[in-house]
Amino acid sequence: MEIITLLKIGGKILDDEPTLDQLLDDFCALSGPKVLIHGGGKAATEMAARLGLEAMMVEGRRVTDAAMLEVVVMVYAGLVNKQVVAKIQARGQTSVGLTGADFGLMLAHKRPVVRVDYGWVGDVDQVDGPRVQWLLDHGVLPVVAPITHDGRGQLLNTNADTMAAAIANALAPLAPVRLVYSFEKPGVLRDPTDDHSVISLITPSLFLQYREAGVIAGGMVPKLEAACSALEAGVEEVVICQAKALRQVGTPGFVGTVIRKD
Amino acid sequence: MEIITLLKIGGKILDDEPTLDQLLDDFCALSGPKVLIHGGGKAATEMAARLGLEAMMVEGRRVTDAAMLEVVVMVYAGLVNKQVVAKIQARGQTSVGLTGADFGLMLAHKRPVVRVDYGWVGDVDQVDGPRVQWLLDHGVLPVVAPITHDGRGQLLNTNADTMAAAIANALAPLAPVRLVYSFEKPGVLRDPTDDHSVISLITPSLFLQYREAGVIAGGMVPKLEAACSALEAGVEEVVICQAKALRQVGTPGFVGTVIRKD
Repeated sequence: MEIITLLKIGGKILDDEPTLDQLLDDFCALSGPKVLIHGGGKAATEMAARLGLEAMMVEGRRVTDAAMLEVVVMVYAGLVNKQVVAKIQARGQTSVGLTGADFGLMLAHKRPVVRVDYGWVGDVDQVDGPRVQWLLDHGVLPVVAPITHDGRGQLLNTNADTMAAAIANALAPLAPVRLVYSFEKPGVLRDPTDDHSVISLITPSLFLQYREAGVIAGGMVPKLEAACSALEAGVEEVVICQAKALRQVGTPGFVGTVIRKD
Repeated sequence: MEIITLLKIGGKILDDEPTLDQLLDDFCALSGPKVLIHGGGKAATEMAARLGLEAMMVEGRRVTDAAMLEVVVMVYAGLVNKQVVAKIQARGQTSVGLTGADFGLMLAHKRPVVRVDYGWVGDVDQVDGPRVQWLLDHGVLPVVAPITHDGRGQLLNTNADTMAAAIANALAPLAPVRLVYSFEKPGVLRDPTDDHSVISLITPSLFLQYREAGVIAGGMVPKLEAACSALEAGVEEVVICQAKALRQVGTPGFVGTVIRKD
């Protein structure tokens, strides 16, 4: 069975059309079934500003009031998603743009208010892996926007990294899965100031050692914890690399970090 | 083979949530395969105004510059489409929100500039009827936003009435199709000032007589011409009725206009 490649791309790539076009060329050239999950942070922030709304962030997560939910649904599920779908269609591949509401793909619940009220933010409960597999089996490339629903008609804003991992975890029992996070740096670095210090392979036990030694710290810790959870769920490998390295994923010339089981 | 019901709903229904909820209750209660096509005019005009853009209309069609295209893609394909999809999912039916770019469903070309430059407006060239049929065969209810693409990565704004007819025409060779236009009036009226003067049946030859006699005039003429073209393409019947009459479509208690072949 061919490995499924799930690629998560973030705001910076989407904001720069030549970079996005190059990435989509490379992505479409990869063989095997593929899923694209995108964010779209800057475009949503800009649109909110044009509408006189202020983007509020708490602990790296957007606080989503009703007005901001409208903006993220418009920008993520409308503008960004459909532009990417049209670009993939132009590359000769059949693509469909989806949120978690479409096909009832991803059910979420509004995050409970504990210390912080994040507003209309959804935490994922359930992903319909067989539905994604069905699309892939029919040669369709799903493009997923980071919007979910609660099954009662309410749309919810959901973190794109989390959605990518949730989809990977739901597909893992059905097929071999590779989850690729497109990153600004060329991978996880031994020395954050040296782009040539990429750690090419991390296993869960190596991660613990690196963390102990303080080599992996800060924002990389939750990313690698999520990667290790994905491996636990059966994902074959998690890859962290730059967009431009995508075409070499799975080949000897690849530059980036691969996270695999021990 | 069960008849496929295609329902086109316009801006006014979408702007009023209780009316929309009632309509979706009625629509979901209809038996057989179904497709929903929506506009979203007022929401797009309002969003454009909030962004400081001015909606320009020429001969009843929106002139779509690059900024307005962004707005209609955001509002139609994002906000309106995904809200409707989430509402249908909440009613226990599997639904997917689509533009003409998704699955390469509807290929269009930018309308050539003759007297008027309509901007990024697409005229439909081709609809992938078998793809829609495939979704219906799998119990999926497509919700279609009036956005197409040119196959080269460009999104285009397309009239929702036209899209509805184009999808009906593409499905007609595959299955029996009923195309329903939700309308403000209870149907085509003999006397525009009397809502009780609904003409319950119009055939192409009756249409010519009514037009000759001046009973059908103005904006109803292109609507009925489009309906007659749909019959030519093999559509079983075109229905023009109020949202609240939807639940009686195909039953003896139905109030509205049915257009059928002689």
